[in-house]
This record gives sequence, C-alpha cells and structure tokens, in this order.
Amino acid sequence: MQIYAEILTIGDEILYGQIQNTNTHYISQALSEIGVKVRHHTTVGDDEQAILTALKQAHDRADIILMTGGLGPTKDDITKKTLCKFWETDLIIHDEWLRKLEAFFTKRGRPMLESNIQQAAMPRTATLLDNRLGTAPGIWQDFQGKIYVSMPGVPHEMEVLMQEQVLTRLRAHFTLPYIVHKVIHTVAIGESFLAEKINDWEENLPAHIRLAYLPHNYQVRLRLTGIGNDRVQIEGDIAQEVEKVMPLIEKFVFGFDKITLEEAVGQLLMTENKTVSTAESCTGGYVAHSFTKVAGSSKYFKGGLVAYTQEIKTGVLGVETQTIDAHTAVSEQTAKEMAIQVRQKFNTDFGLATTGYAGPEGGTPEQPIGTVWIACASEKGVFAQNHVIPLDRMRHIYFATVLALDLLRKNIVGLE
Amino acid sequence: MQIYAEILTIGDEILYGQIQNTNTHYISQALSEIGVKVRHHTTVGDDEQAILTALKQAHDRADIILMTGGLGPTKDDITKKTLCKFWETDLIIHDEWLRKLEAFFTKRGRPMLESNIQQAAMPRTATLLDNRLGTAPGIWQDFQGKIYVSMPGVPHEMEVLMQEQVLTRLRAHFTLPYIVHKVIHTVAIGESFLAEKINDWEENLPAHIRLAYLPHNYQVRLRLTGIGNDRVQIEGDIAQEVEKVMPLIEKFVFGFDKITLEEAVGQLLMTENKTVSTAESCTGGYVAHSFTKVAGSSKYFKGGLVAYTQEIKTGVLGVETQTIDAHTAVSEQTAKEMAIQVRQKFNTDFGLATTGYAGPEGGTPEQPIGTVWIACASEKGVFAQNHVIPLDRMRHIYFATVLALDLLRKNIVGLE
Repeated sequence: MQIYAEILTIGDEILYGQIQNTNTHYISQALSEIGVKVRHHTTVGDDEQAILTALKQAHDRADIILMTGGLGPTKDDITKKTLCKFWETDLIIHDEWLRKLEAFFTKRGRPMLESNIQQAAMPRTATLLDNRLGTAPGIWQDFQGKIYVSMPGVPHEMEVLMQEQVLTRLRAHFTLPYIVHKVIHTVAIGESFLAEKINDWEENLPAHIRLAYLPHNYQVRLRLTGIGNDRVQIEGDIAQEVEKVMPLIEKFVFGFDKITLEEAVGQLLMTENKTVSTAESCTGGYVAHSFTKVAGSSKYFKGGLVAYTQEIKTGVLGVETQTIDAHTAVSEQTAKEMAIQVRQKFNTDFGLATTGYAGPEGGTPEQPIGTVWIACASEKGVFAQNHVIPLDRMRHIYFATVLALDLLRKNIVGLE
Repeated sequence: MQIYAEILTIGDEILYGQIQNTNTHYISQALSEIGVKVRHHTTVGDDEQAILTALKQAHDRADIILMTGGLGPTKDDITKKTLCKFWETDLIIHDEWLRKLEAFFTKRGRPMLESNIQQAAMPRTATLLDNRLGTAPGIWQDFQGKIYVSMPGVPHEMEVLMQEQVLTRLRAHFTLPYIVHKVIHTVAIGESFLAEKINDWEENLPAHIRLAYLPHNYQVRLRLTGIGNDRVQIEGDIAQEVEKVMPLIEKFVFGFDKITLEEAVGQLLMTENKTVSTAESCTGGYVAHSFTKVAGSSKYFKGGLVAYTQEIKTGVLGVETQTIDAHTAVSEQTAKEMAIQVRQKFNTDFGLATTGYAGPEGGTPEQPIGTVWIACASEKGVFAQNHVIPLDRMRHIYFATVLALDLLRKNIVGLE
C-alpha cells in the first residue's frame, strides 16, 4: 500500500523570501528513499489560523505530516500551542528535557531565560525526539491514525533528527516496500559525456531499476534505485548492473554510496600511508578546508600555504621570482614550482598546488578569467593540468578544488 | 490595502526531492520587494485533481497566484488544460507564438514535433507573456478579480519573465503599499541574549514596524520591516528605531543590509589600509577561504598557513617547541605565538590565529572537544580569547571562523 506524505513548513522568513526552504528538499529526498510518496509541500506563516487550516488539509490527504520551523526560542509559542489545539491536547513541561536544558546552560555558564524554559514545553500526548544538537526537541504525535512530526527549522538539527530517529520510526510504523539505492560517484566528467558513455547500458536496464544523474560541483552521482518486495533479489540485480557499467567509467569513479571526494582521497592516502600538503592561490584555502573537514585528516594532511600575493609566493613559499616574471603567476611553471616547494617545506609525500584567475577581475588574453593551473608533486615528479572554468568566483573555487583533489587521486592510484 | 499572493509550484520532480525549489524563493523575494505579502507556498504534482484543488484554495485566499512549472514540451498538456478548466475557457493556438517557434526550430535545423506545436497553445482568455529565452511562453490571466500568472519552471526563464514583465504588470494592476526593510547584522551573541538586550525596545516598536530574528552561524540578523503608504515616512520611522536600538547592541553590529562578516572585515581593512595573514589549526583553511571568497580580497589578505600538525606549527610556522610542550597546542600561548609568527613571516599588519579541538576526537579534561583559542597580533600587541563550541565538527569550524573574523574586526575598530 502506498504511503503518502505532506511537508509543512512554518515561517514568515520563508514566505518573504528571506531564506531558502532547503529543509523541504532534504525531507522530500529522504522520504523518497524509504518509499514514501510526497504529494504536497506547503509553507505558511507564523499564524495560528494558517497553521490550523494547513494541518486540517494535510490530515485529509496524507498519512504522514512532517513539519519544520516555528520552534526557535523566540517564537515556538504559536506553533506548539496551535499543534496542541489541533491534536486536542495541552502543553506540559517535559522534566527530562528541562533538566537537559539546565545542564546545557550551566555548562556554558549562561543564565536560563523564560524563553529557554518554554523550549521544554511539549504537547501532553506527544513523544519527545531528542535533539542532540540544539535546545528545541522534535515532536512525534500519532493523531487519528496519522503520524505528525514537528522538527526545528535549523537544517542540520532537522537532518540529524531525520537520520537518527524519524526515518527509523516511520519504517517501524508503516509497511514500506524495499527500496535499494546504489550510488556511483564520478568526477571530472560532464553529465552528457557520461550519458554518452553508458547509453547502451542505460537503455537495457531492467524495468524495476531506475537510473538518475545527480550532478553537483563537477561531480556526477549515478544513482541506481531498485524497488520490490524481495530485498536480496533487488540487491543482487543492482550489483550485477554495477558490474556491467564499471568498465565503461572506471577512471572517473572515486567511490560508492556515502562518500565524498575528500574522504575518498583521504582513505587512499591512509591506505598508502602517504601525506600531503597544499599550496593554494586561487582556491584560497578551500583545498586545505576540504581535507580538514574530514575527521582524522591530521593523519595525512600536514598543512598548507595560501599564497595569495606574489610576495608570499616568492618570499614565503619559495617560488623563483624569475619564474613568475617569465611565465606569470597563472602558468604551468608557477603551479609546478608551488607544488614542489610546498612538498619540500612541509616534508610530505605529495604537494598539491592551484593557481588561477577566479575573477571577476584579472586574466590575460591567453589565460582568461576562469583559467586554473593545478599541479601535483611526488617522488615520481611533478604533473600539471590546466582547465578553464568560466563560471562565477565561488564555482571557480569549488570546481578548481575538485579538480585538484582529483589530480591527487589519479596520482595516488597511478592514473596520471 | 494589503495585497496577498500565493505561489504554486507544479512538478513531481520537486515533490520527490530531485530538484530544489529555488523558484519559490526567488518569487517570494521579488514580491516582498514590491510590497506584496506572500501568505502561502504550495507544491503539487503533475496531476489534474491536485492542481485544481490548489487553484481553488489559492483563489479563496490570495489576490495574486503565481505559478511555475508544468509547462515543458513533455508535460504542459495537463497544466494548460487544467488551467482552462479552472478559468472556464479553452485552448487555442497562438499564431504569433507558433510562427516564433517555427523560426526557432528552423534556425537550429531541428524538426518541430507535435509537442512543440502544443507550446503555442494558450487559454483563449489569457494574455501571452513573451519568453525570450525559451519555447514556453508565460500566461497572464485575470479571472474573477484575481490575477494568475503561469511561468515556465526553468529558473532563468522565470526570472527574466518576472523582472521584465510580471512585476511591472502587477505594479500597474494593483495599488501597492511601500515596504521598507532594514537589516542589522550582529555577531558573537546568541539569539536569546540579543532578545533580552533589546526586549524593551522591541516591545515599544510602532505597529507598522515588525522585527524578525534571523540566526545563522553565530550571527543574528535583525530585520526591521516597515509598511505604509508614505515611503519617506516609513524610512524615517525605521531610521529612528535603528538609532534607538544601536546603543544597546553596538559592539555586536558589523554592518547593515546586504553585507557578510568577511566583506565587512575586508572593508574595514581597506579603509584603514591594513593587511592580514592567517595561521590556522582547527579551522583548517576556512578562515583563509572566508577572506578569499570576497572578490578583491588580495588587496588586504596576503596569505596564510594551515599548520595542522605540531611539526608544521614548529618547523614551518615557527612556534617554539617548548611552548607546545609546556602548554599544549590548544592554549593561549600557542595561539598567541601562531598569530605573532604569521604576522612576522607574511609581513602583515594583523596576524590571525586559531587552534582548537574540532572533534570528534582529541581534547583534554581542561580543554574539552569544542575548545578553541583565537588570537590576533598587531602593532598594539597580541590578544587572545577562548570559546567552547560543543557542536559537530563542521559547526566548530564555521563558528570558530566567525569568532576569529570578529576578533579581528574588534581589533581593527579598537573594541578589543
């Protein structure tokens, strides 16, 4: 039996276009992955009547109503009172949560305000969902056969609640079909080129397996989704299709399922017991950040230099002034010297360098805005590549970082 | 008289979480700016009954109904037929648009399919809005005193239609009030503490001025929104309120309206003709990235060092080994030496340093996970602060970066 969901967002700031409603997108994806069909998205303001009407309509057409927003310390009043009215219950202070809040504020040496105490108020008939990242808990309510979940609007708090509690509880409550996903992560190949390479394979996919292309930041995730009543069967069918497609795209694939490019590169470095350092110009620290956002990265990432001006490139990093004078700062030669120098200075196995014109100013007729040179130095020598990324400044930084990480990946596995 | 709008998005791909609904955000912002109040966002699938129900509900509660999606060559059938049913009219081929389409396909040497011809089908009673970027035109319909606009879902086509035609037509059709926004950006103070500080002021705001708290990354934006018929009067009223509230929060305010913390700090550095360099441990390059994401930052940001291991802190950055041995890497002394050393090595006016335990591993009983020391060195000496940010790794990085930028800001303006 198909289970239907509706997503209800509460908040004037969304209606007035002050913030983008990313929560609804996230929840829609998460529900689709467990076989729940989302049929409606609604956003209303912090207004009792509007919330009540939306709840009533949602109640009539969905089995699951997931809500976000309206739970911050300055405004959770309306939302929680309105939910109580709709669920025909009242608010009580949740003792355990109150003690948790008290501990939270004591630990920070901060006074607890009346608005903070109210965050422990819960509808009497509801179940509290622990929010380990914030002060507003989640609310789970079974009302007249429909499941309601209210979550705080702060995206990462909502995401952790969804992943750790809401999805598991929904799976336990409803009988859902088996949906099996397999994600293949590719990098440094555009969507249409990828589609061309795997066209024949794609056309011969069995009917119960669907393919989606999910492009982001010069990476395309290929998501295979199988649906059916026999989990083992679907998993086997998907594994078989992965085996068929891999030879066509192997060199672009850096991993499967939940992994990021920086995690994949980090794992390769750990496996090979190698270290890396970075020398960045146009990416301005973003390559170093990409390494260090991964927990445990100090095992392989020793550090880096952001050499944003010529003075730092020569004076601190040690690039020869005549190299820059002869070839400019955005050149194969400068990139290579940056990689060699940082590898030496930081005493690492790999040295990774970027130099380019991120824009909106800079560039030359030969090396227009968007040009980036990346280089990777190792005991085998130094390799450089150039690319033109004629996009805005932020995407230049992100794409150049992805290309740098991919160059390192190819160097480690011997593809370059 | 307040004019109300509802935004209706049509498309299964949005409900299933395959694409983010950025159109609704864009339209909400655009309507807010001309004084139209958005009261409802709705998304439904490509389904006649769902669209009809949504249209009926929107008709009852809004003056303006803006729609996107459901107009592509593969699926505009349902949407346009449903609109005709609702508006009690029928579809006719729009000759002029058909000729435009024919010219479009001839120019590209592509055959014109039946589905393309159908893109010239328009509700008989509607006005066609020229879409100069695509094959699906916009639709403007005045039905029973309510204005309906249907636009293609491709974001840049919708945006050009909005900017070039829809907003002008709405302004001409309705008498719109003036809406004035003023945003005050604060940093390094939590939402509830800020609320407490300005409580009296907030309670005495005149009825035509509303206040919203918009928290993000240890920054809270205070948004004042005034509404009325006399623009000069509202602007004056808002300016007066800003003048009243500023003394209460001055040291936390880094800017007004459209500005980011890194832009504000950059502007201060430019005004003072000063330069900065960074020495990062726990933030791993994110402070450098925050500076360099701003176009033109090479005027004041010379570069930085990411010293992720002790070897780099001592060997490359030049922190004394005995400092780390005596006080550990996460300490006031280490942070201060990092700031002093990078300032010297990079020859900048300010040296900014971070060292902490981002987690999930590390920390000591005295300096638990989440602890961060930040330091700022200048000709006036070196200042250090510590904070405990007991959040996940990514927020530790983001918050520590915000605190570092804010410490620099306070040093530049003499607050520290």
